[in-house]
Amino acid sequence: MSTAADRFATEGFGPENLPYASFSPTGGDPRLGVRLGDRAIDLAALAATVEGLDDAARAAASAPNLDALLAAGHETWTALRRWLVEVVTADGLDEAVDQASHPVGGITLHMPFTVADYVDYYASEHHASNVGKIFRPDQAPLLPNWKHLPVGYHGRSGTVIPSGRDFPRPKGLRPEQSGTPSFGPSRRLDIEAEMGFVLGGSAPAGEVSLQQAAAEHVFGVVLFNDWSARDIQAYEYVPLGPYLGKSFASSVSLWVVPWEALAAARVQPPAREHELAPYLDDTGAEPWGLDITMEVVVDGQTVSCPPVRTMYWTAPQMVAHMTVNGACLRPGDFFGSGTVSGPEKDQRGSFLELSWGGKEPFTLPDGTEMSFLQDGQTVTLKGTAPGPGGSVIDFGECTATILPAT
Amino acid sequence: MSTAADRFATEGFGPENLPYASFSPTGGDPRLGVRLGDRAIDLAALAATVEGLDDAARAAASAPNLDALLAAGHETWTALRRWLVEVVTADGLDEAVDQASHPVGGITLHMPFTVADYVDYYASEHHASNVGKIFRPDQAPLLPNWKHLPVGYHGRSGTVIPSGRDFPRPKGLRPEQSGTPSFGPSRRLDIEAEMGFVLGGSAPAGEVSLQQAAAEHVFGVVLFNDWSARDIQAYEYVPLGPYLGKSFASSVSLWVVPWEALAAARVQPPAREHELAPYLDDTGAEPWGLDITMEVVVDGQTVSCPPVRTMYWTAPQMVAHMTVNGACLRPGDFFGSGTVSGPEKDQRGSFLELSWGGKEPFTLPDGTEMSFLQDGQTVTLKGTAPGPGGSVIDFGECTATILPAT
Repeated sequence: MSTAADRFATEGFGPENLPYASFSPTGGDPRLGVRLGDRAIDLAALAATVEGLDDAARAAASAPNLDALLAAGHETWTALRRWLVEVVTADGLDEAVDQASHPVGGITLHMPFTVADYVDYYASEHHASNVGKIFRPDQAPLLPNWKHLPVGYHGRSGTVIPSGRDFPRPKGLRPEQSGTPSFGPSRRLDIEAEMGFVLGGSAPAGEVSLQQAAAEHVFGVVLFNDWSARDIQAYEYVPLGPYLGKSFASSVSLWVVPWEALAAARVQPPAREHELAPYLDDTGAEPWGLDITMEVVVDGQTVSCPPVRTMYWTAPQMVAHMTVNGACLRPGDFFGSGTVSGPEKDQRGSFLELSWGGKEPFTLPDGTEMSFLQDGQTVTLKGTAPGPGGSVIDFGECTATILPAT
Repeated sequence: MSTAADRFATEGFGPENLPYASFSPTGGDPRLGVRLGDRAIDLAALAATVEGLDDAARAAASAPNLDALLAAGHETWTALRRWLVEVVTADGLDEAVDQASHPVGGITLHMPFTVADYVDYYASEHHASNVGKIFRPDQAPLLPNWKHLPVGYHGRSGTVIPSGRDFPRPKGLRPEQSGTPSFGPSRRLDIEAEMGFVLGGSAPAGEVSLQQAAAEHVFGVVLFNDWSARDIQAYEYVPLGPYLGKSFASSVSLWVVPWEALAAARVQPPAREHELAPYLDDTGAEPWGLDITMEVVVDGQTVSCPPVRTMYWTAPQMVAHMTVNGACLRPGDFFGSGTVSGPEKDQRGSFLELSWGGKEPFTLPDGTEMSFLQDGQTVTLKGTAPGPGGSVIDFGECTATILPAT
């Protein structure tokens, strides 16, 4: 007698993690799966042979992606995960898991959920300070509002794309010394290494509290690269914020790590400089910071390791803020944390910061000097967090290659 | 022998207009309809008794709202409209139209389409200049980019709501003299009187040209009120633009006027001050400005009549800009024009402008003095445009009442 976890788990993808994806085996239709080691377990197939799911969870497990589970709400996704952990750690169910699973090397991954509204935040103090120093060197690095609320804006849901989809360099109006902009491909194409948060359940009247956000609405966490054309952004963004400089592509990793799988990775966020408004005040709350370490890899070479634990604002705070004005929350709402940067240079999550606005090109391990991205370069984000009992939670990867402008 | 147009048409809702809505008769399911006079014609019912639609158009006509028609693309919606105009102007089909229709006084209207991405532009020169003068009195009213590209930003699709749905005053962080913001209900709740544009068809690789936008993607036009909490917006908006100050509610009128119905309302937009980038250059193109006159009504009293013909940027330019960076266009994408303001005080489309930042309260015809909105006040937008042969195209109304904060 053995368990599926004994037979199949690998470091990073053990029974503590069990991230969700929408996948197709060769020639098959998209279906919902969870990852255990190098196996993608087909949830509908597993539920057909192993008992224990109620009707709601079975229906959500049999959908092609996470949409039904996100709509079903937290009680259903909690029940489904509890059942999955039991099944993969139960003696004697390893054969059933084996029969329902496919090697991850042979499957195709799809967008794991349909993005409803997409918001991008700006929650890293080191990132916001670096950007302030680069663009407003004679002023205080942070604007006055930054420590009173999580600054954010809405982005384009339709261009949130799956990891692995390459895209052409965007075109737009670029600032020029003459004052008259020029039209052409971006010359300052950048990344933003972020974490993304997938929301479920509904809150038609908004006003989601910190506790409700954490317990009922944050479903899962992904790696997120909010590709940015800094020159287009710089010309267009006053006074209404980023638009085309950000809306051409934003990549998500395709294994959605359950929020519950990050219980052992929770850490206290940084000390609060101001007393916060009641809806944001996390004094005495359980810690909602996350000890995730990201890795930014360019053409196979690591350039930085942004530490998510240094983020000033937590995911529940970003949800509470998003809805405090009465804005509804819908299943599939999604938000990015904003670029994750730590205090050290090798912890910066954008090339804007790594090259200090392009003025200080940096060198890859193979000797290549770079500031912003060239056509043909591939950027891959990775991430890991501590799991229970010394285990590791692996986020997989979020990757794309820059194609030449059309 | 008579025609349906002869029997049922009224000024504003004749056979030149035929706007679409999703409606339910008492006790009935939502269905797609067009308006002729005071009748809502059930398209599925009409198509069941009158021949002439191909399968694609019949399927789209039988859907509960516009989603299927927007996805079917411009050839289908052109064919459907051609058939509808023929049917309502054909001798002897008036009985069939009568049988398929319901009095508009007895129906319930729904959101006419599912909003995919929502963008809000800032396309009125008089509005942008007024805002500049109010907030930056010692600088040039327009920022340097304004006449080189249509400034815009993404908004929250989930809070685009149907006309007639009332909503509570939003809460958020408001700026205070002390520098420390206070949390509470907005004290400067405003409107933005805009036109909204409903897009159809798909452009997976973006880069929609002006001609393609006009011929293949702009499906219809509505009245749009982008309710704005000016105090929340003022505190939050640097450096990434409006967020919670705009995301609590944005109301759309529920009869979608077809773009084709506005052929007689096309006018030349204002002269271009700069040579525009090729993708925006409308020199020599057919005129895409729109001679729509809006009306802003507070508690039944007209306060201004914003003229859409004064808008600097046209709908095709806003679509071309939205997609020039490679961003895909999806059926159901929607954008607002930005507040419509003309050169005269009684043509301003926001209370911010009408009260000059709150410093110059204005007086309603009944003697009420106001700057921003009080609880219980109702704002209604109306709009009309010239149709062919001296007819009128009526946009119906876009209305909501402010409820007290929760």
